[in-house]
Amino acid sequence: VEAGITVADLGEFGLIAAIRALLPPDQRLSIGPGDDAAVLLVPDGQVVATTDLLVEGRHFRRDWSGPADVGVKAAAQNLADVAAMGAVPRTLLLGLACPADLAAEWVLDMVRGMVTECRRAGASIAGGDVTAADSIMLGITALGDLAGQDPVTRRGARPGDVVAVAGRLGWSAAGLALLRHGLAERGDLADGGFLADGGDLADRGIPADGGHALAALIAAHRRPQPPYEAGPAAAAAGATAMLDVSDGLLSDLGHIAEDSEVCIDLQSDQITVSEPVVLAAGLLGADWTDWVLAGGEDHALAATFPPAAALPDGWSVIGTVRAGSGVLVDGVVGNGPLGWDHFR
Amino acid sequence: VEAGITVADLGEFGLIAAIRALLPPDQRLSIGPGDDAAVLLVPDGQVVATTDLLVEGRHFRRDWSGPADVGVKAAAQNLADVAAMGAVPRTLLLGLACPADLAAEWVLDMVRGMVTECRRAGASIAGGDVTAADSIMLGITALGDLAGQDPVTRRGARPGDVVAVAGRLGWSAAGLALLRHGLAERGDLADGGFLADGGDLADRGIPADGGHALAALIAAHRRPQPPYEAGPAAAAAGATAMLDVSDGLLSDLGHIAEDSEVCIDLQSDQITVSEPVVLAAGLLGADWTDWVLAGGEDHALAATFPPAAALPDGWSVIGTVRAGSGVLVDGVVGNGPLGWDHFR
Repeated sequence: VEAGITVADLGEFGLIAAIRALLPPDQRLSIGPGDDAAVLLVPDGQVVATTDLLVEGRHFRRDWSGPADVGVKAAAQNLADVAAMGAVPRTLLLGLACPADLAAEWVLDMVRGMVTECRRAGASIAGGDVTAADSIMLGITALGDLAGQDPVTRRGARPGDVVAVAGRLGWSAAGLALLRHGLAERGDLADGGFLADGGDLADRGIPADGGHALAALIAAHRRPQPPYEAGPAAAAAGATAMLDVSDGLLSDLGHIAEDSEVCIDLQSDQITVSEPVVLAAGLLGADWTDWVLAGGEDHALAATFPPAAALPDGWSVIGTVRAGSGVLVDGVVGNGPLGWDHFR
Repeated sequence: VEAGITVADLGEFGLIAAIRALLPPDQRLSIGPGDDAAVLLVPDGQVVATTDLLVEGRHFRRDWSGPADVGVKAAAQNLADVAAMGAVPRTLLLGLACPADLAAEWVLDMVRGMVTECRRAGASIAGGDVTAADSIMLGITALGDLAGQDPVTRRGARPGDVVAVAGRLGWSAAGLALLRHGLAERGDLADGGFLADGGDLADRGIPADGGHALAALIAAHRRPQPPYEAGPAAAAAGATAMLDVSDGLLSDLGHIAEDSEVCIDLQSDQITVSEPVVLAAGLLGADWTDWVLAGGEDHALAATFPPAAALPDGWSVIGTVRAGSGVLVDGVVGNGPLGWDHFR
């Protein structure tokens, strides 16, 4: 599609045809895009299904994220929900509402981002819906296959279990803080260049290669990379409860504590904090604890395992399950920010 | 929830809890609302999946439709897509974006409407997502079960097949025209009362009980009632192609003609026009042909059957399939409005 062509120029059916041309075939779809509905094969007779909405200005900003970033993020947060049940993500449905004067290439680049992330997860795009709206909104549904395993819910944690995570903590929140600070991911970051507010990285004590690390945080905010394989692997290893960390580690573990009627006690010295996160906190004078304990959107997986379980690759222990209720850090109730409420 | 309570007052988790309290249990859900994803049992190992977005001001108007109407319509248009594959609708996922100051009761009444329509179709609500936005948007996904039958696509129509429909044609379009004309569905319609523009129904030649008929059209626009059972019944009777009429009969049959590489020839004298539709056309000086041939949103089902097939209850023949391409009416290419493009 040429530059300057809008979705109105293509029309609904032209836009759908252009989107479909980007979608790789998938043999697990007995019916793919282009009919009233798609048909996905799930040989064990159970399908995992989840949906999320993404609203421009709330879940993404077009000045902070390119269209492919938005596509990656939209796919990732839904595919991660499937993995958090212990299932293999299989396919997405894409609902897209957008202004008629939006560049068609924005939509197609967004779809390319979704395809990229779906490929990382082993999933396809089975169909969807496009319609006009005043701003961009995405309604994404992900479907997955338990492949004969039982789903891992939030209800099965038992006192004595260990608590473990797979994936990144605090990266997306640190990247968002950097973007809010006016620090864009630019070429000059890579060699210790200038901040948007005029300060030199070196003046702030950032090492010469620190720009790379900061750019990686911004990239992590734009394109979360959930550890999809860790979900089915945890289910196979006997995980008793699991979820994806979308609102913040303490907030989300609170759901396991509540639904399983247990207390989750984290040991802060077991939570590994990545070097780039520490670097960004130093630069911004921020507390990385907030990012790690309350930052969402990295879509790490958190789970509980029986004490004797052998944890799969990528999982590390961060605490234990006790009788009681709530989430503690080193035995104490936290008093920091606990997560994200979409209406507050 | 008391009057005056907004979704922000309840908060994201309070709103979700209030919604969940309205949802009947469903034994086909091995995991229902409240986890990262739902799990639906589909014993034959195939799941039918479709998604649609509904945007306030485009797909519904809050001054023309109450919240329960919006819920019925949102559910119906997705459940109809499942039935149009020959499947039994099983469950919905509800994505809801809305302003923080929206009355919580609006949301709950909308969900009650969805539950009502789901019950009519034999389906449940398995989960969803709520988030804030400047206006109301729904992202609905419907999942269905083929129960061992093969899906009926748009590709299988063959020359010699008959074309048939089940459900209403032109009702929703007539109801919308009445609403656009300022004719609301009021008590005084029932006894031949006044139009909103000041004209008396009797002055327009509407019989004394005509108000009931006009009100039924408006109700049909607000709450489409797709003939869900007709979908699996058509599949069992050997339907060769099927879809739901969402954009208009000619436009949607055009998809079967194109995908099946055939010509669809409708016989106008076989298309039954309902009395209320004729009445409304007379009142508004409109051509009911446009409503019947090009009006969408009733979510009738249209299908092709082998010539020897015994049509199930509710299906009536309206034409034949020939070699060729396109959609004809009485052998002639139509020149009227052909349907709806969301971006034009």
